[in-house]
Amino acid sequence: MNTAARTIDPTSDAAIAASVTPRPIEEIGDRLGVPAAALYRYGPDKAKIALDFARKAEAKADGRLILVTAINPTPAGEGKTTTTIGLGDALARAGKRVAIALREPSLGPVFGSKGGATGGGHAQIVPMQDINLHFTGDFHAISAAHNLLAATIDNHIYWGNALDIDTRRINWRRVVDLNDRALRSVVVGLGGPGNGFPREDGFDITVASEVMAIFCLARSLEDLEERLGRMVVAQNRARQPITAGQLKVTGAMTALLRDAFQPNLVQTLEATPAVVHGGPFANIAHGCNSVMATRTALGLADYVVTEAGFGADLGAEKFLDIKCRQAGLTPSVVVIVATVRALKMHGGVAQKDLGAENVAAVSAGTSNLVRHIENMKAFGLPAVVAINRFTGDTAAEIDAIRAACAAVGASVHLCSHWADGSAGAVGLAEEVAALAAGPSAFRPLYASELPLLAKIEAIATRIYRAGAVAVEPGALRKLGEFEAQGHGDLPICMAKTQYSFSADPTRRGAPEGFVLPVRDVRLSAGAGFVVALCGDVMTMPGLPSRPAAEDIFVDETGFIGGVF
Amino acid sequence: MNTAARTIDPTSDAAIAASVTPRPIEEIGDRLGVPAAALYRYGPDKAKIALDFARKAEAKADGRLILVTAINPTPAGEGKTTTTIGLGDALARAGKRVAIALREPSLGPVFGSKGGATGGGHAQIVPMQDINLHFTGDFHAISAAHNLLAATIDNHIYWGNALDIDTRRINWRRVVDLNDRALRSVVVGLGGPGNGFPREDGFDITVASEVMAIFCLARSLEDLEERLGRMVVAQNRARQPITAGQLKVTGAMTALLRDAFQPNLVQTLEATPAVVHGGPFANIAHGCNSVMATRTALGLADYVVTEAGFGADLGAEKFLDIKCRQAGLTPSVVVIVATVRALKMHGGVAQKDLGAENVAAVSAGTSNLVRHIENMKAFGLPAVVAINRFTGDTAAEIDAIRAACAAVGASVHLCSHWADGSAGAVGLAEEVAALAAGPSAFRPLYASELPLLAKIEAIATRIYRAGAVAVEPGALRKLGEFEAQGHGDLPICMAKTQYSFSADPTRRGAPEGFVLPVRDVRLSAGAGFVVALCGDVMTMPGLPSRPAAEDIFVDETGFIGGVF
Repeated sequence: MNTAARTIDPTSDAAIAASVTPRPIEEIGDRLGVPAAALYRYGPDKAKIALDFARKAEAKADGRLILVTAINPTPAGEGKTTTTIGLGDALARAGKRVAIALREPSLGPVFGSKGGATGGGHAQIVPMQDINLHFTGDFHAISAAHNLLAATIDNHIYWGNALDIDTRRINWRRVVDLNDRALRSVVVGLGGPGNGFPREDGFDITVASEVMAIFCLARSLEDLEERLGRMVVAQNRARQPITAGQLKVTGAMTALLRDAFQPNLVQTLEATPAVVHGGPFANIAHGCNSVMATRTALGLADYVVTEAGFGADLGAEKFLDIKCRQAGLTPSVVVIVATVRALKMHGGVAQKDLGAENVAAVSAGTSNLVRHIENMKAFGLPAVVAINRFTGDTAAEIDAIRAACAAVGASVHLCSHWADGSAGAVGLAEEVAALAAGPSAFRPLYASELPLLAKIEAIATRIYRAGAVAVEPGALRKLGEFEAQGHGDLPICMAKTQYSFSADPTRRGAPEGFVLPVRDVRLSAGAGFVVALCGDVMTMPGLPSRPAAEDIFVDETGFIGGVF
Repeated sequence: MNTAARTIDPTSDAAIAASVTPRPIEEIGDRLGVPAAALYRYGPDKAKIALDFARKAEAKADGRLILVTAINPTPAGEGKTTTTIGLGDALARAGKRVAIALREPSLGPVFGSKGGATGGGHAQIVPMQDINLHFTGDFHAISAAHNLLAATIDNHIYWGNALDIDTRRINWRRVVDLNDRALRSVVVGLGGPGNGFPREDGFDITVASEVMAIFCLARSLEDLEERLGRMVVAQNRARQPITAGQLKVTGAMTALLRDAFQPNLVQTLEATPAVVHGGPFANIAHGCNSVMATRTALGLADYVVTEAGFGADLGAEKFLDIKCRQAGLTPSVVVIVATVRALKMHGGVAQKDLGAENVAAVSAGTSNLVRHIENMKAFGLPAVVAINRFTGDTAAEIDAIRAACAAVGASVHLCSHWADGSAGAVGLAEEVAALAAGPSAFRPLYASELPLLAKIEAIATRIYRAGAVAVEPGALRKLGEFEAQGHGDLPICMAKTQYSFSADPTRRGAPEGFVLPVRDVRLSAGAGFVVALCGDVMTMPGLPSRPAAEDIFVDETGFIGGVF
């Protein structure tokens, strides 16, 4: 045991969260017009919204949708989640009927180095320890459904392999919701005939499962099961695709996901309703919370604030071209979060020098921010800039940001919701509400009818500003196969570094004219997109040399302290 | 999809369960004096009993404890769970304040061939689909805690291996709560230096985890964490044991288990309270529900009916010598469940002939039942026989059982709770209540101070009636090592076939004078027992050629049908 460090830091997120008594979840439901009978409670302060009620709400879905995204971030992130929460709280403070729609945390980062995903300071959702650990069990349900299918594939082969599955060409890996690098590449089926046929396999983290992506895009349990059935899990010896549907366990998988599919309701520290549901990877998947949750929130609230993973080049583009397109959503406003430190970094300052004032570097770094603002115009959407303020930021640095943004018609709001809660995001909320009042001119970047390669090129040249796209021959051939199989109308899910517009994480600022390499492409037939891999994609993280898990403890009152 | 079979059989357990509307869980809590404030609800009909309330209740734990066990079973089982539920319902019908204490089902058998574990017919606990699937997430929490430790071991080695762990001697495998034979024996850490050091590994089903055994034996969260810390996970190059405590994640594991550690409250179809919590394997672990649940139930009810896995030679012996000893429990009465069919089998009848009346075979087969009755006397406990009645059983066959039991002073009750609910177990309940009224003369079979080998011999010769025990030399050496390390006072956890008193599953009836082979022994230092392996032990089942999963579905109302 590691009892030496078992004291609770009074300035920690956990301590701040513990200083506020959450309202009963029935009261939070009532704010959105959800009757207690439609709440499936998990203790006093968490609930699922009953599916039949949620489906009635999502059929309406007429609230205003506000997307919070960011510049290309530093490894620590720019504060999208806290800004989403702060903005939501500020809209509620202004008397608006509002709901926040966020992703659920994964256990991997919680025990690794990134920590939780419930905001921070005075902009948090609670109960933060619960949400960061098992929450309502959704990810466990997704893991179980995923792994049931995996076990079924090997079991099918064991009992005669009627589908003639080629054991060298099984692409359905197993999952665990932890960071465990030793499982990235494994050989299974060892130990003799009773254990099956040895073959190469591997584990991904649960959030990388196509089941997770489907869970977040399905519109109903029927849609969920149909999508599960379409997933391609292997090829047979004739190189034909084998789908999950052919293995006959999509009914059981749907049974495992039935309860999880209902959106989760919690609250912020200021008792603003938050619908927290799903959490697909932002690289090989689309990186936003579930369609069920977003649409349910839109049916219950006048304003819904949500976020998308990574920077706007990846997160916002996929939110708009994949999620909004599939789910029939029309966003109204985009908020782009930036920090002075990150803009300095985009202006060429080294990590160790980020603490010192450097107006010139900030000014140079705004090239990154300005391009994201302009990119949102390509979708017909107004963009507002939120500066997630740190105490070291200077007035001159802020002025440099204002000047650059004014040149492209975007206003800048200094936000201190981390320190001040809703009071720190009042100005941002006012402008967002004003912009959301008008009609939305949202349009996706590209038409579904475009060939797959043309879609990749549209994203690369219009959003990333690449000069050209270099697709590996094997990937090009696969794109043709996908089109021949009838998947040509799917949107593209880009898997690229989040740190640069290019595929090179060291190219900060606003590079242009570069060649974007597409090494491989993958079909996610159930989720409904084609993944374009522009570099190495890590689908199973590792733990750091000193994992956050070492600091986590339960004290004698049952309070969970440590990393949070 | 497998939609052809998507109809609900009106005679199925699921349909019978659906015909009864469960009472609100607050009403069930109220029957036991649990206030609504001490219920952490999971929807309308499931709850956890808040730990602080449960701890107050378990400190009292003064109810009468009734153990339901069985003869050596047939593969289908003799009906211990339905008898536990039927007896509990019948005691409630007689006006007693009663609670049932059961194990939680594992997902593996649910999707395999055995099906659910919530009783059957009119003796069920509900909501049966929920309990059989994720329930309140306890097993998922145990899986996550187990696998976090596994990931930490490989991560420790990856970052320099300060503990000098011998990668050939890591005994901490990984777990998944599914039947997945392809994972029994694997190689992990492949794919290059970034993924760690390749080594042999394997997966067990979650119920086989020592974390599960600890979860079911711990008396508090502090005790839980201390036990986790004592678990031996590997040896270093000097062959010294490496414990989980040295890896510094027992705090995080305890945080993952905090909520799960609270006992779950549900109800029978007749609204009798049922505390359903934990579910360790009955071979390499002790096979009973959690001490927290049993003791909490004993603190809240006047009568607690519980069960133990497998037949009385394994399940009851381990319940009495491991669980009762560790938890300070004093049982009052043992109910031994038998079926006419199984007794016929013990009398030498082949599977295909079990349907025909065969009084002589039943009479011969009672040797198995009689020995179990006599064995209970070795623990100072009165035994009652419950015949789980099937329609084909004849009066002459029943008379043969009565005669054999009368000779050893045990009465026989014909029970039809499966068909009739509590009305089918009235006589059994009357006798059990009468026997429980007196003082208990319970004593464990052996003293803790006996050497480990002498304990094994006591079980083998006095319970199994072996003539001798043959311990492999390597196992004998390990017993000496365990004693030298200070574990000599631990009880023994026998891992033996459930189908025979001997280690040979084909030896039915009441064999005696045989040699019991002990192939290997294992230390479960956290759970607090030494496992003696008398044959192959399967810690990861496989799926059958036609898994039950293929029949499971969710209909348009959200009802889960299929195997149940």
